[in-house]
Amino acid sequence: MIRGVRGTLVAKRSGEVLVDVQGVTFRVQTSATTLQELGEPGDLVSLVTHLIVREDELALYGFATEAELELFLSLLAVSGVGPRGALNLLSLAAPDRLTEWIRGERIEELARAPGIGKKTASRIVLELRGRLPALTEVQAGEPIDQELVAALQALGYTAQEARQAATHPEVRRAPSLEERIVAALRQLAPP
Amino acid sequence: MIRGVRGTLVAKRSGEVLVDVQGVTFRVQTSATTLQELGEPGDLVSLVTHLIVREDELALYGFATEAELELFLSLLAVSGVGPRGALNLLSLAAPDRLTEWIRGERIEELARAPGIGKKTASRIVLELRGRLPALTEVQAGEPIDQELVAALQALGYTAQEARQAATHPEVRRAPSLEERIVAALRQLAPP
Amino acid sequence: MIRGVRGTLVAKRSGEVLVDVQGVTFRVQTSATTLQELGEPGDLVSLVTHLIVREDELALYGFATEAELELFLSLLAVSGVGPRGALNLLSLAAPDRLTEWIRGERIEELARAPGIGKKTASRIVLELRGRLPALTEVQAGEPIDQELVAALQALGYTAQEARQAATHPEVRRAPSLEERIVAALRQLAPP
Amino acid sequence: MIRGVRGTLVAKRSGEVLVDVQGVTFRVQTSATTLQELGEPGDLVSLVTHLIVREDELALYGFATEAELELFLSLLAVSGVGPRGALNLLSLAAPDRLTEWIRGERIEELARAPGIGKKTASRIVLELRGRLPALTEVQAGEPIDQELVAALQALGYTAQEARQAATHPEVRRAPSLEERIVAALRQLAPP
Repeated sequence: MIRGVRGTLVAKRSGEVLVDVQGVTFRVQTSATTLQELGEPGDLVSLVTHLIVREDELALYGFATEAELELFLSLLAVSGVGPRGALNLLSLAAPDRLTEWIRGERIEELARAPGIGKKTASRIVLELRGRLPALTEVQAGEPIDQELVAALQALGYTAQEARQAATHPEVRRAPSLEERIVAALRQLAPP
Repeated sequence: MIRGVRGTLVAKRSGEVLVDVQGVTFRVQTSATTLQELGEPGDLVSLVTHLIVREDELALYGFATEAELELFLSLLAVSGVGPRGALNLLSLAAPDRLTEWIRGERIEELARAPGIGKKTASRIVLELRGRLPALTEVQAGEPIDQELVAALQALGYTAQEARQAATHPEVRRAPSLEERIVAALRQLAPP
Repeated sequence: MIRGVRGTLVAKRSGEVLVDVQGVTFRVQTSATTLQELGEPGDLVSLVTHLIVREDELALYGFATEAELELFLSLLAVSGVGPRGALNLLSLAAPDRLTEWIRGERIEELARAPGIGKKTASRIVLELRGRLPALTEVQAGEPIDQELVAALQALGYTAQEARQAATHPEVRRAPSLEERIVAALRQLAPP
Repeated sequence: MIRGVRGTLVAKRSGEVLVDVQGVTFRVQTSATTLQELGEPGDLVSLVTHLIVREDELALYGFATEAELELFLSLLAVSGVGPRGALNLLSLAAPDRLTEWIRGERIEELARAPGIGKKTASRIVLELRGRLPALTEVQAGEPIDQELVAALQALGYTAQEARQAATHPEVRRAPSLEERIVAALRQLAPP
């Protein structure tokens, strides 16, 4: 039900970030890969998320990119792989590298993740090898507006902030570079 | 408990939309009928919703009109029809057409929906035929302010945005057309 | 967990109201007594609420006054009285009148509520008679600022809006009447 | 999932506070220690929280400091100590004093808390004695900016508001005292 949060990064800790969205601070469990992508406490961040509901817990898992979220959901579908194991796998390498290992049946690499033995690694390869899409930085039809990202970074925003703003639908729709910069700055203004 | 969401349309995909409401992106499962009604990513949208709570899931279902939501709830009350089946039926045709098929006992038409066999279609007819209200675009006593909708569309808003704003209580209460336009623009201003 | 909602009244229907709080519309089940107190769709309303969590439902019950909420919670504690029965009782009469009936063992009056038979009415009297506080319009130490309410009504606000704003902590703290009016108008400004 | 709330303090009662965050009032169960730290209704407050999900309840527990939250979570991990017992212990003394008693095996002191007998007190000592971090007002590397807190208090803010603002990431990053005051005032401005 909750497929994303956008707010002020309050804290970064091993395995989780805290994001203040209009006065409610969400605890979002995540991977080392995403932690590296995010800026510093005080920055505006945007994560794509997946809500797991159990009888005794509501847990929110989030990532800097759709690609990493999709891979997380694919890994969860493999029997024997829970959220913690999926996060450990995603902390080993970026989504495209991890996908290569799964396609290339690199059981040894996958089994390096804590909590993932050779048996589970083999099952991941068996179940996902043929089903994972070719992972590019962004879905084929929507390349990142590098020019806009560079302009925003020149204005002092982090790479992650600039990319998040550049992929926002309102920014994409603005015809000229100037209008996209204005639209992006509006997205980046503190909520 | 959650009977509506109003925010920026982030993405439209088969069977679902993502709506950013003040920094929280809600995943709302919906029908092809509603997907056609909604604008493009970046537009302001407003959906009427129904929250389904299960032991392992919180799922939000949403529609562009009250009429479609009411029909969704009626279909869910028929044994053997789950949310997925109800969405497939609602994706076949607009609510008023679907209601005509149910009243006219058009089992063949209803059974075209994926996951709805003839047996379930017959049960839908049996249980709902006499209970469905005459579905008009809006409840009898509250016709859409076409003049206002046209004025808003002339200002560049989509049909769905204009109708949503035109039916907002604050806009309805404004006495003159000018005041209704101002009130509608206030509703349409980005949150 | 959710002890109140404050936003725009979207719709009033038998047994429930819809309140838009910053883009999320909450469905709040309530009594006829509260429905009479609330203004019209488009008004700013504030309800005190109680969240009931079940395996298959999240249900929010809300009232115009703390007194009615407290009585609702007391009624729920009586075995055999569920939320629907408690709302039916609260729809019979205002909290102070209902409390008098319970103290005065007026079984006949209580049993007029749909779903509340004489047996349940007797149990309500037995379990609550000695425990209900003397219900006044507001807890003894905090009388309503009638002067402020009158001033706000003169500015066009409904009685319910004026009373809600007048009881807001920030408004109570303002020393002079002028400052209380300014603070109240800030509360009443659309969110 | 909800690791903090920031909004207007609506009410303070024994064992709980009500905090209005953008129109939704959260009921946060807390200790006497935190109640003393918080300001008065109408003040802006910020609490770190822990959400407990049960089949029939969503309960939010919150504290003025991370130290008190960490100790609450540690106490909950001891078998036989539930949220109510943990709050009663935390209401006996501030986190650093309570930690001293646990390390110093002060069973008598701990057993003064309602609902905590000698057996449970001994188990707390046994399980936590060696595991509790040296509790200082704030983690070692991040001392409170006393100069900034004093300046904010001179401007009329309570100690708790000033400390909350002074520890906000955005405020910490501002280089000079003047810039930190401006950043803090932005945090303290009503949402």
